[in-house]
Amino acid sequence: MITVNDLRAHPLDQVHRLIEPGPVILISTEHRGVPNVMTNGFNMMVRHAPPVIACTVGPWDHSYTALVETGECVISVPTSELAATVVDIGNCSGADIDKFERFALTAVHGEVVRAPLIAECFANIECRVADTSLVGSHHLFLLQPVAAWTDPSRPTPQMLHHRGDGTFTVDGPVLDLQERMTKWQYLL
Amino acid sequence: MITVNDLRAHPLDQVHRLIEPGPVILISTEHRGVPNVMTNGFNMMVRHAPPVIACTVGPWDHSYTALVETGECVISVPTSELAATVVDIGNCSGADIDKFERFALTAVHGEVVRAPLIAECFANIECRVADTSLVGSHHLFLLQPVAAWTDPSRPTPQMLHHRGDGTFTVDGPVLDLQERMTKWQYLL
Repeated sequence: MITVNDLRAHPLDQVHRLIEPGPVILISTEHRGVPNVMTNGFNMMVRHAPPVIACTVGPWDHSYTALVETGECVISVPTSELAATVVDIGNCSGADIDKFERFALTAVHGEVVRAPLIAECFANIECRVADTSLVGSHHLFLLQPVAAWTDPSRPTPQMLHHRGDGTFTVDGPVLDLQERMTKWQYLL
Repeated sequence: MITVNDLRAHPLDQVHRLIEPGPVILISTEHRGVPNVMTNGFNMMVRHAPPVIACTVGPWDHSYTALVETGECVISVPTSELAATVVDIGNCSGADIDKFERFALTAVHGEVVRAPLIAECFANIECRVADTSLVGSHHLFLLQPVAAWTDPSRPTPQMLHHRGDGTFTVDGPVLDLQERMTKWQYLL
């Protein structure tokens, strides 16, 4: 059985390194003992530290009720190997099937929230709902990461970026421009 | 002189194809006749149609006052060739220099807003501020795209994704999984 002890704790003030690149993500929830997971391409980093993440989840998503009623979720960042599964998770509903079973996802108990981490994803971020003031008008949730984990066995994960039409770009070459970054406060 | 007539009008209900992949963007403004531009890695698509984009701009950004007072901006999506310029734009202030002149950016008149498009970017989205309710607490602006343009001379642009530490990934291979996308409503 995989536990968080098999993962590496990721500093909360470095969560932006997982989200700012713009990956498609999975959002898992647990509601009345039933885990579920959805695919999400509409998300962003809002603040570095303490970290805040925004994402859209609407009433048409089966996960919506779980997110609203429990106030908790886990954001998982998949890599390119999971591309087909990421699409399939997004094209069926937890109202109809157990997606963890159907897609052979390994649920891992988190440290803080009840929603499951996903062992097949290289990063997992346990979150609590922090602000719902734009949920009614825009289905926009603000989430506060409360624990984060990465898989030490995958040092060079390649994220997936949804191009909005069922095609995805995989991370390509890395450009290191750190020497030019002298005044961080402007690059929020 | 380059005008919007040299660009291709991009349908507003397809703006998500420019933002959902998670690129680092430029945000240009015009305030009291002075154009300015900043780099931004914290942004997302909020709604497909009519489109809404969210981004963070804080009081520490010189562009903040322009955005608040004019209620307008242009989001420009740069490609990998502009990487060094994107970083440099993010590491100096419009309070000190004219960034369009300093970085030899070609300002193009938009069709709706006064903020300039940037000819060197493959996509430009004219926006109006739509909601400021989370600006006070989270510096989070919701923007309504009102016109969008792409450069027809660049059919295969490679976006840049900021990894949050001064390194960037460039778009790599494209995975086409459209055949698996049967129920769009779940992939928000």
